[in-house]
Amino acid sequence: MTQEESKMQLPEGYSFRKLKSTDYSNNYIETLKVLTTVGNITEEQFGNLFATWSKNPEIYQPHVIVNSSGTIVATGMLLIESKLIHECGKVGHIEDISVATSEQGKKLGNYLVRSLSLLAKNSGCYKVILDCSSHNVGFYEKCGYKNDGIEMVQRF
Amino acid sequence: MTQEESKMQLPEGYSFRKLKSTDYSNNYIETLKVLTTVGNITEEQFGNLFATWSKNPEIYQPHVIVNSSGTIVATGMLLIESKLIHECGKVGHIEDISVATSEQGKKLGNYLVRSLSLLAKNSGCYKVILDCSSHNVGFYEKCGYKNDGIEMVQRF
Repeated sequence: MTQEESKMQLPEGYSFRKLKSTDYSNNYIETLKVLTTVGNITEEQFGNLFATWSKNPEIYQPHVIVNSSGTIVATGMLLIESKLIHECGKVGHIEDISVATSEQGKKLGNYLVRSLSLLAKNSGCYKVILDCSSHNVGFYEKCGYKNDGIEMVQRF
Repeated sequence: MTQEESKMQLPEGYSFRKLKSTDYSNNYIETLKVLTTVGNITEEQFGNLFATWSKNPEIYQPHVIVNSSGTIVATGMLLIESKLIHECGKVGHIEDISVATSEQGKKLGNYLVRSLSLLAKNSGCYKVILDCSSHNVGFYEKCGYKNDGIEMVQRF
């Protein structure tokens, strides 16, 4: 076991896995609502989005952590971008990390970010990046990240 | 013409268009080398990457500006991500903006970023984001962007 892997441990019975098409009613949407506005997503909308993601499995890699009852308690997306720069290099983007309020304090977020980062590394990415607010910098530093630039936005 | 569009003007004979499969020998790679390390990309590698991008035209939208001779003088990628949050919202990511050294000072970068941002807006994105170093913040502010967070990285 590498030092990187030895740091990673989930509570007993918990596991990290890919999102499934049947997760609509398995607390996925509720978990994302901890992060931001989600809105009312119908089962059909979820199905269409899941199909879009599944059509492009090398690009979209949505993952979750489930507890010992199989209920989703944390979510995170790894998006893998194929570039021309860096000898046709790939870059991982981590998006939409969210942990259910009642499950916070168990280092699930740390486990999730490290697991998605390892997936990016094992997929041949030369780096993985993410954007966060200044008060989350410390959390991501504990996950092995460092400040590398500024996020700029234009909203419509 | 909206105020946004009226700000956008290219030098005579220049145009903004999608990247083409035949652009391998049209200064595309040389233009990207102004931005960062590219390496030696063969025509086959370029072809494979172009095919990957073309298979997913809603996700990968690589664009260029060409001069009056049809030669590429600026490059930029718009990546469109489909999310669940914000009512199955879409987010545009602007990547790999580069302007040929001999063409700088003509506001091509500004035109390119505004054009990609408009594409994102017209594709239904609720926002478009990008990462930059602190010394490029002023440039992106002139393109209509504002600081929204911190970029974090892990390199492999």
